[in-house]
Amino acid sequence: MVAAITAGAHAEHGMNSLTILPEIAHQHVSFEDGLVLDCGTRIGRLDIAFRTYGRLNQARTNAVLVCHALTGDQYVAEIHPVTGKPGWWDSVAGPGLPIDTDRYFVICANVLGGCMGSTGPLSPHDEGSGCWGTDFPPITIRDMVRAQKRLIDHLGIGRLFAVIGGSMGGMQALEWAALYPDAVFAAVPIATASYHSAQNIAFHEVGRQAIFADPDWQEGRYWQTGRAPARGLAVARMCAHITYVSEQALTRKFGRRLQQAPKSSQEAIRLFGDMFEVQSYLHHQGSAFVRRFDANSYVTITRAMDYFDLAEEHGGDLADAFRGTRTRFCLVSFSSDWLFPTEESRAIVRALNRVAANVSFVEIATDRGHDAFLLDERDFHRTLAGFLGGCAEHANL
Amino acid sequence: MVAAITAGAHAEHGMNSLTILPEIAHQHVSFEDGLVLDCGTRIGRLDIAFRTYGRLNQARTNAVLVCHALTGDQYVAEIHPVTGKPGWWDSVAGPGLPIDTDRYFVICANVLGGCMGSTGPLSPHDEGSGCWGTDFPPITIRDMVRAQKRLIDHLGIGRLFAVIGGSMGGMQALEWAALYPDAVFAAVPIATASYHSAQNIAFHEVGRQAIFADPDWQEGRYWQTGRAPARGLAVARMCAHITYVSEQALTRKFGRRLQQAPKSSQEAIRLFGDMFEVQSYLHHQGSAFVRRFDANSYVTITRAMDYFDLAEEHGGDLADAFRGTRTRFCLVSFSSDWLFPTEESRAIVRALNRVAANVSFVEIATDRGHDAFLLDERDFHRTLAGFLGGCAEHANL
Repeated sequence: MVAAITAGAHAEHGMNSLTILPEIAHQHVSFEDGLVLDCGTRIGRLDIAFRTYGRLNQARTNAVLVCHALTGDQYVAEIHPVTGKPGWWDSVAGPGLPIDTDRYFVICANVLGGCMGSTGPLSPHDEGSGCWGTDFPPITIRDMVRAQKRLIDHLGIGRLFAVIGGSMGGMQALEWAALYPDAVFAAVPIATASYHSAQNIAFHEVGRQAIFADPDWQEGRYWQTGRAPARGLAVARMCAHITYVSEQALTRKFGRRLQQAPKSSQEAIRLFGDMFEVQSYLHHQGSAFVRRFDANSYVTITRAMDYFDLAEEHGGDLADAFRGTRTRFCLVSFSSDWLFPTEESRAIVRALNRVAANVSFVEIATDRGHDAFLLDERDFHRTLAGFLGGCAEHANL
Repeated sequence: MVAAITAGAHAEHGMNSLTILPEIAHQHVSFEDGLVLDCGTRIGRLDIAFRTYGRLNQARTNAVLVCHALTGDQYVAEIHPVTGKPGWWDSVAGPGLPIDTDRYFVICANVLGGCMGSTGPLSPHDEGSGCWGTDFPPITIRDMVRAQKRLIDHLGIGRLFAVIGGSMGGMQALEWAALYPDAVFAAVPIATASYHSAQNIAFHEVGRQAIFADPDWQEGRYWQTGRAPARGLAVARMCAHITYVSEQALTRKFGRRLQQAPKSSQEAIRLFGDMFEVQSYLHHQGSAFVRRFDANSYVTITRAMDYFDLAEEHGGDLADAFRGTRTRFCLVSFSSDWLFPTEESRAIVRALNRVAANVSFVEIATDRGHDAFLLDERDFHRTLAGFLGGCAEHANL
């Protein structure tokens, strides 16, 4: 059963999550029959908040699903309603851009577990009053993809022309191709991996522990008091942010530059506390983040990433995830990405080769690290535009 | 003016730091005339806690100063009085080992700013009652070295046969060679750099912010209540620990292994919270650390490391730090160390070459990351033993 697309679900439910994040009437669709999760729990009501750009063609064959990363959301190519900043991929998706909205119908949904309108820890609890909070069930990348599939079905789209995403978005693109091979004409997993590594799990764990150490965490029930664990969440963000950039990029952008020139070496040492530009840059990353993100969502989504292991879902051999696939793949990695190194993309390419899949692979030379997929990287944009253009010919778009 | 070597300075002063760390009567020497720091502040009384191993020869020419790293201390080669574990370098310093205590007189002092008996934030404030706490002046690596020099002078040693240290200990070894060239026959800076990089500053900043976010930080005056910011300090340690090991080592040791085999994939997902072995390993690293380390010391010492820039101390050219040196250098790096990459050791070697210094350099091939200098790395131990043996011949030991 599918409700009409409505706005303002939070307001409807009279939630007090409003004290945690700004109240915004996100465009969304509600599925009153809910969703059964990998953990066995059924969520009674599934809301999927989403945005679209461009027009769906008559044959409904030009839809491109963009999957966002851990801290991204559905505001791909427009002003973000909380931050007032341009969309996170407005250099990639838009008229005449690599994901050309004059040609493709672009869809992006806030992930299940998120905090921008889709069902997540800040949503009303199925039973009783208040939010799910820490009672929100553990979710997987596959659960996120199943939720997106409901939206795609609702929109009457039988086959997506492409599923595209970076980082956790790339995990979703891989999962889409594995779970719904006939519904994905082309897949572009960018700066990603088929499983989360021990080091990546460790960094996520540090972030979660920072959140749990904040007294405002209140065992995850902070929405009851309206005091969110902003300091812990900011520390989590700062730690994660370091992993998103390369050592070279940090050195190039900040090096050991000081925030203000001290008059003497004695004064320099006294300014210690907040001395280097890289420190205030990190502080800014932390404080900007907590205004738009929920700590329980952060915990929920990082755990979903940590748990992701596509080979494990298919008996231990990654190739078995893609056996018989007709999807066209383009894997993209960035040379200085140490969070999802090129080697992890190569491993996916090898698995795809073993099932004779149609796959191309490009490592983009850049010193900007993992975040390069969000930045103005011309080689990457040319790769993406070229691959999509070639696929469009094959798809008779 | 020099006081006799006494024990139990903390008890003498009736400090309440005892509620923060276990009360231990560290062997130490007190300098009642204090120390003038780089920041211009004078510390009224300087305590240096230290340990020695082996015997100083008649000519006082066989002394080896070992400099410890950020979270190390003077208990190099004996059971640690707090943890009950073997000394941090007991595979390197001892009879018949690379730093052979049958041959050399080994000295290690707790650094200025530390929390194992040397003057630091838990020491009694010069003015008024209580500890220094956050009023402890900012210190530099050079201040640490000046404090050690007082100890060496006190012990009647005119020239050290060698100064050896890894990580922050390597920074001190470099600083010793630059500041007191005639007092250092040989220097072995291991897994270190002549300055702290933007990425390393950023990781330290995350750790400090985690400490500051802990409500038990109490603006650094936690020694008044006896409730130390253990959770914040544990998060800082966890974050730092990831940087001490390599991605390969984490993968080899833990990979994605689970702590307990779940009976079903549904149970696996429910165990989410503390699922992977690497998580409990990190938790252990955090909780073990807070029992032996003080948060104000952590803040003070990480800032000293961040501020370290040996070239900057000498007008911007690292070579000028060593011009005319007669010290014999042996630089050691580890191939998988991403905190202090080999390139940073090479930069030091190039600077030493430019002043025609006597320098050798070895990159040890290992996948164990930065912490390799603390581990049983045979190639490293052979390198160290060989270099010291060769220098001993030149020094007529």
